Amino acid sequence: MTLDAGAGDLDTIPPTDRTRLRRLRERGAFERSTVEAILDEGLVAHVGVVDGAHPVVLPMAYARVGRTLYVHGAVANHLLRTGADGEICVTVTLLDGLVLSRSWFHHSMNYRSVVVYGRARLVTDDEEKRVASRALVEHLAEGRSDATRPVTPEELRKTTFLALPIDEASAKIRTGPPGEDPADLDGEAWGGVLPLRLAAAGPVADDHTPAAAELPGHLVGWSR
Amino acid sequence: MTLDAGAGDLDTIPPTDRTRLRRLRERGAFERSTVEAILDEGLVAHVGVVDGAHPVVLPMAYARVGRTLYVHGAVANHLLRTGADGEICVTVTLLDGLVLSRSWFHHSMNYRSVVVYGRARLVTDDEEKRVASRALVEHLAEGRSDATRPVTPEELRKTTFLALPIDEASAKIRTGPPGEDPADLDGEAWGGVLPLRLAAAGPVADDHTPAAAELPGHLVGWSR
Repeated sequence: MTLDAGAGDLDTIPPTDRTRLRRLRERGAFERSTVEAILDEGLVAHVGVVDGAHPVVLPMAYARVGRTLYVHGAVANHLLRTGADGEICVTVTLLDGLVLSRSWFHHSMNYRSVVVYGRARLVTDDEEKRVASRALVEHLAEGRSDATRPVTPEELRKTTFLALPIDEASAKIRTGPPGEDPADLDGEAWGGVLPLRLAAAGPVADDHTPAAAELPGHLVGWSR
Repeated sequence: MTLDAGAGDLDTIPPTDRTRLRRLRERGAFERSTVEAILDEGLVAHVGVVDGAHPVVLPMAYARVGRTLYVHGAVANHLLRTGADGEICVTVTLLDGLVLSRSWFHHSMNYRSVVVYGRARLVTDDEEKRVASRALVEHLAEGRSDATRPVTPEELRKTTFLALPIDEASAKIRTGPPGEDPADLDGEAWGGVLPLRLAAAGPVADDHTPAAAELPGHLVGWSR
């Protein structure tokens, strides 16, 4: 226990018109720790930009460094060029289960999602690009950046990074059993939740891996 | 074998400026069967709309009926109201594995994704809404719509459905081991893929389920 023990209550992200839930407000969460935990558990972000007048949503790798979210891709990447110095929306969703009701209407899914809105900043500083590159590898498997070759200046030149401050963001969470209409509960039917999670199967070494090579410790028992 | 056996080759979705890949074209796929298989395997779509001038991307349940994709939500749902009769983008991503290179730069993920662009149509016909409702339940677990109470006219009134034709769509797929720079292959390091998949844990019955109730057959051995 420290004097800061209660400070977590203060660390909420201020809601805005676009992050405040209009309905089912009990599902919304603005604690920074909740938002960060979901971002750190996810692997794929869905990044939205406006291209001309139409929306474009593409899956991308991402990583969080403190209060900044990074996405990256090849310099020629059209979405990143469109999103650079413009409004983007980054959404990360963790699917936790199927919610199986006794009625079609009340079927649902359990999930935890985060939406981050803001103006993306094109990263131009090589040191910041390096930090983001490392974070992207660490985000896949903690400890792997030390076990692999760092990025070169030439590779950094080929890569576009966008930085998005995690300042306008919210989480949305659904947990628990299905809602039901009382009239549907008369029967003997099964209702409940089928929990889902991302599972790793056995790692598959490539053809360049010597037969004697051991699986690195950071991949042993990998889970999310 | 039938006379139609080769007709699949013809069933491709014509590429457009926004579905044609600008780079790494070998990862793009336009066969309707490939696009449909990915859509049918996924559970969550990330739906993008333009709200004013900024992009909004939210996770939603969805289902495919023939060549139409349906998303739905409460009548008050802001994203659906924004997307109704406007341009939307629906993206579905299946994460298949971590691609673990010997260099930071070549780390990647194996995945299959589909992007569908188009103008959403607000569904107003009750029979079409009913068909979409049924498809949404079947999409979670095949056979479940017959085992549960159908949607009522009152429930349909509370629900907004958007229909999106699967006419402008493409798949993008990455498979296989990491790309590597030859100079990185001198060592004894482990490189390869960590396969990932969505796994179901044991179903959790809710408090209204009689102890004697059996798990319905459509949930036994559920997998995706």
